[in-house]
Amino acid sequence: MNILITGSAGFIGSHLVERFLNEGHTVTGVDNYISGQKRNTELFLAHPNFTFIKADVSHAIPYVGAPLDWVMHFASPASPPHYQQFPIETLMVGAQGTQNALELAHAHGAKFMLASTSEVYGDPLVHPQPETYWGNVNPIGIRSCYDEAKRYAEAITMAYHRDRGVDTRIIRIFNTYGPRMRLDDGRVMTNLINSLINKTDFKIFGDGGQTRSFQYIADLIESIFHVMNSPRIPVINLGSEHEFDILQLVNVFNSLNSHSIGFCFEEPLGDDPKVRKPDNKLRNSSIGKHNFVSLESGLKNMIQFYVK
Amino acid sequence: MNILITGSAGFIGSHLVERFLNEGHTVTGVDNYISGQKRNTELFLAHPNFTFIKADVSHAIPYVGAPLDWVMHFASPASPPHYQQFPIETLMVGAQGTQNALELAHAHGAKFMLASTSEVYGDPLVHPQPETYWGNVNPIGIRSCYDEAKRYAEAITMAYHRDRGVDTRIIRIFNTYGPRMRLDDGRVMTNLINSLINKTDFKIFGDGGQTRSFQYIADLIESIFHVMNSPRIPVINLGSEHEFDILQLVNVFNSLNSHSIGFCFEEPLGDDPKVRKPDNKLRNSSIGKHNFVSLESGLKNMIQFYVK
Repeated sequence: MNILITGSAGFIGSHLVERFLNEGHTVTGVDNYISGQKRNTELFLAHPNFTFIKADVSHAIPYVGAPLDWVMHFASPASPPHYQQFPIETLMVGAQGTQNALELAHAHGAKFMLASTSEVYGDPLVHPQPETYWGNVNPIGIRSCYDEAKRYAEAITMAYHRDRGVDTRIIRIFNTYGPRMRLDDGRVMTNLINSLINKTDFKIFGDGGQTRSFQYIADLIESIFHVMNSPRIPVINLGSEHEFDILQLVNVFNSLNSHSIGFCFEEPLGDDPKVRKPDNKLRNSSIGKHNFVSLESGLKNMIQFYVK
Repeated sequence: MNILITGSAGFIGSHLVERFLNEGHTVTGVDNYISGQKRNTELFLAHPNFTFIKADVSHAIPYVGAPLDWVMHFASPASPPHYQQFPIETLMVGAQGTQNALELAHAHGAKFMLASTSEVYGDPLVHPQPETYWGNVNPIGIRSCYDEAKRYAEAITMAYHRDRGVDTRIIRIFNTYGPRMRLDDGRVMTNLINSLINKTDFKIFGDGGQTRSFQYIADLIESIFHVMNSPRIPVINLGSEHEFDILQLVNVFNSLNSHSIGFCFEEPLGDDPKVRKPDNKLRNSSIGKHNFVSLESGLKNMIQFYVK
């Protein structure tokens, strides 16, 4: 297949590129490096089936080439420190960026995948969250530049499906971790690694009782493949059901290392969700379970990657 | 003052233009007539302080002239039949359109007003709805092209305030009625008028128990003036607290006319809110109450306008 991926130099994008190339597909990656990393492009530049275009997809996607089979829209800052540093760019890549990617898919008769997020559920009042839950997002809060951008991206994706007949598939990605995350990502997994490397206290925002379910990157990539190879599912959660609170996570992390990291408590972050876990009924009945990597194994891989 | 209004040929936009001109201000109206009406522009074309630009604000706002004091972004299809006919255009005017208007305000050092909507509350789980309620909107439903576009518009408005220092004011407009609505608007008030004129049955979608609070256009315009002339209020509800269900509304309407209209029941519309009423505490304490026109008087004015 001939596949174009926006956000190809990002954490998830770069793992997708790798998998596609390994399976013999032709891949065009697009990134503007606002949050993606050049080193993630350099990994594949020597590969004969990989082409890279440096471009801001919010302005245009300057692809010229053979007809595309898939357009995968994965471009966006995704961690709170990054999207709060670039709120307007984050909003734009959700709106204009998504629309440019949809137009490209429509022009090529390609299938379209939107990388959406569990953040569309906001601070959920329903737990776990099924795809039918409408969410609890503050439209004017400091996280809204990301959350509302993604909700808008979902809405325009559905509009292109209903109005223009594009085969669109929305995946709502829950917390995912693994090698190639930016160390300054600002989220819990990379903050743990930073504390380990720099021997600094790990900051817990709030009382540490907020929960997340962590999915290892390889499991996410496997799930995405199954979504691509299945009949169209309009919207699907992709995440792990194994829920941990932050204090439990620190304990697991410390059990894997020869020295423990310390931690301290800070003020809770604005609009930070207190719980987050996917209801996986739809996934399990349609594409099957693909959460094989335990938190311990995933964290070991990640520690090995960063602590050479 | 020097004021630019997008959506100047729309129902609310045209009443704002009239009021501004009457108060001696200079007004530039912008509209692409996707849902606005030419006759609403023609009302003011002879006025020396009015200029009209035909343009799609989602692409650009080609204003060249004296520095602006206010940019008022009122452009958008607003009735379900219109926005469902133009879902992508509706999404675009919420995203690119709002951003173009914000950029113009920023370039001129002008204040910015966003015409948002009670639709950001969706099918509310809290009743009445205060500004602090986060809403219950289906991001992938058939109304999401409008609801999510407006939520996005609020988010980018706040981003321009936080990131670029623009004085932004978001008004969430609840159901409003009066002369100059399009007769094919598709909402309850104009459907009543149509039934009266054409002697056809008025269609009630669902059991008629869904409630709305109806605000007369003159009261809305008065409130908008008070928001403009007050210290910045980031987000404020503008609507009437007088709640009616649809069957009550039909009874009031029939009491005003020499012949009664009949009605019939149809299937409920998708994602149609069951209740909708503003919590007006913030408004009452900041700009005061401005709902003076009773439903009976307002409807009489409207009937007189359409039934010459």
